[in-house]
Amino acid sequence: MSALEELRGRMAELADLESIEMLLGWDQLVMMPAEGAGGRAQQLGVLARLTHERATADELGGWLEELDRAGLEELDGLNRDIVRVARRDYDRARRVPDELAAERARASTDGQESWQHARANDDFSSFMPALQRNIELARAYGECVAGEGEGSYDALLGDYDFGLSSEGLRRIFGALATALPPLVAEAHARLPRRELAVPKAAQQAAVANVLRRLGVEPSSWRVDVSAHPFTAWMGRRDTRVTTRYSDGEVESLLSSLHEYGHALYERQVDPVLERTNLGRGTSMSIHESQSKLWENHVARNPAFAEVLASELGAGGFAVESSELHAALVGVERSVIRVSADPLTYPLHIILRFELELALIDGDLAVADLPEAWREGMRRLLDVEVPSDALGCLQDVHWGAGSFGYFPSYALGCLIAAQLWEAMEAELGPREADLRLGEVAPIQRWLGERVHRHGRRLDTIALVEQATASPLEIAPFLRYVSKLGEPTL
Amino acid sequence: MSALEELRGRMAELADLESIEMLLGWDQLVMMPAEGAGGRAQQLGVLARLTHERATADELGGWLEELDRAGLEELDGLNRDIVRVARRDYDRARRVPDELAAERARASTDGQESWQHARANDDFSSFMPALQRNIELARAYGECVAGEGEGSYDALLGDYDFGLSSEGLRRIFGALATALPPLVAEAHARLPRRELAVPKAAQQAAVANVLRRLGVEPSSWRVDVSAHPFTAWMGRRDTRVTTRYSDGEVESLLSSLHEYGHALYERQVDPVLERTNLGRGTSMSIHESQSKLWENHVARNPAFAEVLASELGAGGFAVESSELHAALVGVERSVIRVSADPLTYPLHIILRFELELALIDGDLAVADLPEAWREGMRRLLDVEVPSDALGCLQDVHWGAGSFGYFPSYALGCLIAAQLWEAMEAELGPREADLRLGEVAPIQRWLGERVHRHGRRLDTIALVEQATASPLEIAPFLRYVSKLGEPTL
Repeated sequence: MSALEELRGRMAELADLESIEMLLGWDQLVMMPAEGAGGRAQQLGVLARLTHERATADELGGWLEELDRAGLEELDGLNRDIVRVARRDYDRARRVPDELAAERARASTDGQESWQHARANDDFSSFMPALQRNIELARAYGECVAGEGEGSYDALLGDYDFGLSSEGLRRIFGALATALPPLVAEAHARLPRRELAVPKAAQQAAVANVLRRLGVEPSSWRVDVSAHPFTAWMGRRDTRVTTRYSDGEVESLLSSLHEYGHALYERQVDPVLERTNLGRGTSMSIHESQSKLWENHVARNPAFAEVLASELGAGGFAVESSELHAALVGVERSVIRVSADPLTYPLHIILRFELELALIDGDLAVADLPEAWREGMRRLLDVEVPSDALGCLQDVHWGAGSFGYFPSYALGCLIAAQLWEAMEAELGPREADLRLGEVAPIQRWLGERVHRHGRRLDTIALVEQATASPLEIAPFLRYVSKLGEPTL
Repeated sequence: MSALEELRGRMAELADLESIEMLLGWDQLVMMPAEGAGGRAQQLGVLARLTHERATADELGGWLEELDRAGLEELDGLNRDIVRVARRDYDRARRVPDELAAERARASTDGQESWQHARANDDFSSFMPALQRNIELARAYGECVAGEGEGSYDALLGDYDFGLSSEGLRRIFGALATALPPLVAEAHARLPRRELAVPKAAQQAAVANVLRRLGVEPSSWRVDVSAHPFTAWMGRRDTRVTTRYSDGEVESLLSSLHEYGHALYERQVDPVLERTNLGRGTSMSIHESQSKLWENHVARNPAFAEVLASELGAGGFAVESSELHAALVGVERSVIRVSADPLTYPLHIILRFELELALIDGDLAVADLPEAWREGMRRLLDVEVPSDALGCLQDVHWGAGSFGYFPSYALGCLIAAQLWEAMEAELGPREADLRLGEVAPIQRWLGERVHRHGRRLDTIALVEQATASPLEIAPFLRYVSKLGEPTL
């Protein structure tokens, strides 16, 4: 076998192992009996170790060198991309000593446990040692992985969004931190948060029917319930989304469309990329842009509210589409990220970015985090944080050792708005179609401009190619300015 | 790390990979969207290849040699068994050339497809080339694996039931083939097959409640529906049984108890054996003895029929326990193995044993199989086979390349009866307890005598230790002679 065949064989194997890991994770959260947890942790550990071994094996380095020597210009465009990204992944993975990777995994498990305890007891100081350890290990990891002239935080970003820099994020988030607060003040009066007491059964019927309209068929999809909604894909024709239902709320309508966005992305990756190292979504921020596009621009669209209202009606809950739409777009200054509205949401993320960057750079001591959090929430959102449990202890990420992940949540909102504008500029306004639940042109446009590329394009290049413009905040600002208007 | 630690680490890894494979298989049959099949086959293929690599790696041989040199008498009893069985598994696996293993896997896939087509069209001749290839490959495999003085078929048996010999099976099955037909003739008149039209909903309610009485709790069990009932275990505290429901039948009551027997076996293996190479059921025939014990000796027990009838009643279907019992024990000479009653069932297996032994030994040509089947069914069961589809094409095993598997089905029936007698001799008759659904003493006895040993004892040694008697047919003959009596 040639070096290229060997390499592609290994990439196919790694893709399959990734699918298997996804299945184990999905099963754990959706199907597994609770007492299976110990065994599952062992199984996931073995799988991660084997995958790491196969992804960093000497022979893989040998094939890459042989291909380098032969010259990549010999290869067609697809194989050139496969080799380019394989080289990048291999080099990053090989720079991390096995002991450090194992130590990080252990610290992540310990940290999540410590965080859970600290949050339940509103006791930040008990969490400090675990957090300190996670920060030090993440910093050390970043230093190993960092390329020429890169800081540790930039290197951490690269695990989620290759090519982003803290410098670029500072600029974008700085502009957003200035522009958003006045819009929040204005919208706070105009779009008060409203409850809509939708019974669970009507939500279930509406979610099932809306997803079916979008093409969710049992022959290649599953829709289940889990404590936290998520999406898993075990190959292009086995997609599994989850949602959750609480009596008297509308969250399930938003979250099911959100997960659908993630799922559609993976399903529309070019089939020729299947079982290569390019055959999945390219980054966390592009993934989040796809979920946010369906959540913010479809589910929260006043025209699509007619579809949602009619499906709720068919499920036994009669509601005016304007009333439903108002319940889906209310704005409120709150202290909790996960339930934040589309307008205030990025401000929650900007705070986390500022703080985690300072923690990794050593500019903020762990002991000073709670006060920095309170100060930031006052500055950005004009709210008082009543406790650390509802403040800097609300998210699991830092307890799990994840630094550099938060930015993708806000970038996803920005990119979704930018893609939506570019799409409407090309296809015309979507209003009339959305009123009828017609989304095929949206699916096709996203497939062509975003999904099919898989990992062949990184975040920044993909945004520029899809929208003929660099990543910018103006489309998002226009979106939130018009939020709640009867037509967009 | 010492050679022993290395070895035990590898055994733990292989145990986890086996659990992962079980999950993939369970998910495929119970949860996976149909179009996921292609991807799942790839995932299973990668997993099998990695597992094989890790199980036959040179370094594993090195650890075993080092342990041999140091002397096994240095080790405690548990570690001695771990090393002994690891050596046996390693030697058997290493004797098979990779190309032969791969060729067998391909022939198995092709053979199943060919078989499916042949059965659907009642066209045995179209299946002949695939069957011929499977036989030749199985024979070649057996020759590689065979120990000193062993025939090819004996070596094949060893994959399912280590330590059995065709000679021993000939003796046992020969005696059974003589003793059973007169009993069938007698029972045929005494215990006619009776239908009992139980609605699906009542079956579902009864199965759920009966399993709950046996300790099936959602915290560490799942009960699902699948096309063919089966059991999967992903560690001791994650057990998953499936059943199926057809309106107007009673099969679900028997099959759910059958699967429960498999499940309980794996759950009661000694916890110190977990994640070793000894931490699972020892053989196919002991496994089948556990399922048959709960199916034949509990579910078909006239005393337990009172529990089943009362649960059906609670599910909305009123029935006398005697009437239900009669429907569970009816005897009928039929041509189909899977729906055969407890008395005629072993005769179906004896035929398959005779024929597959002759095929592997070269004493029967593939072209002569259909006629040999008809002759055997006349001789053993006194029935005429109307077609090959309902004759030698009815089972998938030979199409899949499995030879040496069938005997365990009949041995399971024999061993179940022998264990039941030994248990009643020690604990006293189970009748009064079973009438109340009290099974804890049975669970405990099986746990102590059978389950806890895992793979530390092979089939024959386990039977002798548990029952203080060699494997014999008399207990089974006593069981079927009394079948259908109001008390046993």
